[in-house]
Amino acid sequence: MSERLILHEYAASGNCYKVRLTAAHVGVALELHEYDIMKGETRTPEFLAEIDANGRIPVLQIGDRFLPESNAACFYLATGSPLIPSDRFDRADMLRWMFWEQYHHEPNIATLRFWLRHVGMDALGEVRRLQLVPKRQAGIAALELMDRHLARRNWFVGDHMTIADICLFAYTHVADEADFDLELYPAVTHWIERIMSDPRYILFDSELVLALDA
Amino acid sequence: MSERLILHEYAASGNCYKVRLTAAHVGVALELHEYDIMKGETRTPEFLAEIDANGRIPVLQIGDRFLPESNAACFYLATGSPLIPSDRFDRADMLRWMFWEQYHHEPNIATLRFWLRHVGMDALGEVRRLQLVPKRQAGIAALELMDRHLARRNWFVGDHMTIADICLFAYTHVADEADFDLELYPAVTHWIERIMSDPRYILFDSELVLALDA
Repeated sequence: MSERLILHEYAASGNCYKVRLTAAHVGVALELHEYDIMKGETRTPEFLAEIDANGRIPVLQIGDRFLPESNAACFYLATGSPLIPSDRFDRADMLRWMFWEQYHHEPNIATLRFWLRHVGMDALGEVRRLQLVPKRQAGIAALELMDRHLARRNWFVGDHMTIADICLFAYTHVADEADFDLELYPAVTHWIERIMSDPRYILFDSELVLALDA
Repeated sequence: MSERLILHEYAASGNCYKVRLTAAHVGVALELHEYDIMKGETRTPEFLAEIDANGRIPVLQIGDRFLPESNAACFYLATGSPLIPSDRFDRADMLRWMFWEQYHHEPNIATLRFWLRHVGMDALGEVRRLQLVPKRQAGIAALELMDRHLARRNWFVGDHMTIADICLFAYTHVADEADFDLELYPAVTHWIERIMSDPRYILFDSELVLALDA
């Protein structure tokens, strides 16, 4: 990869951490540009015009091209590496878990973490408050599904780590920050330990970032 | 493709239609197994044990293997066809739009369509009622983003149709069923016409299915 790689990100975001963890696994360096989403820095006219019209991070910049959506950025970085299976079914099955993560996992576990830890209960409006219980239930269902799946295997797809594991790991390993009890999911816990014991593992440091922001 | 391909589906679901439209484009025949989600047919112990532990359709069955998640099924079917770009950036950018569809488009436009047309206003509980306005606003934002993107190009990625177009088309072209006014989005409307004029196009027939169900 000869083009300059810039990650436009917010360090406390698990979606951004996915991309950094993938980069660490494939051994490429990312230049980090930080934005404070709590201060609206991804909704400025400049950001919307130049980086992402959707106003969100992460965005992976490859030379002068911009790639939003965390899971797509992971796919780009991991292309040609063992993190993406070469088998046709396994590759589609990896994407299955990544689409599942965006639909059934992230909107529940990551959103609850954001509401509880970043926004704060006192600042939650009525619409969000009423979603606390359904999102809690859906988050538990997601963790239960992962636990049943991992009870029979070490990795989500095939016999080694793929970006499906990395993308699911990002918000799962900090699910306690959204008041989920990870001890209830032993297969998930072992899978988390498996990922954290890899020599290419890098820390999220979300607690550090939250503390720095405060 | 020599293995038997079965689509476990509900014909009125746009997520299932994506997979049928992709199959039509690549010229493969799918055997269709219908389930009525309104009657809980995807939550039976048999379905959960054999087809998808997540209890949802569509699921693409390839021989004796099962692939949930509509966008992953489209990726599997389109592998090796022009519907998936061979360029590294374009392929990731196609996935970008497919992840965006699952996060920013489907939970708003498809969910409102489901609530308004299948569940019905009278049967909507308080939590859902309070989400009508935020989902309406997010759905409009999604259509506006698509319209701005398509104002400068014919297809979402590159210079020909990819599965990003197919996956976004499924619920966009029936957004009027969720009370969105597609006439407000001229570039989207032209893109819809472009897809519908392709000789490989097949009809959703959601109105027919809704009528048959009633």
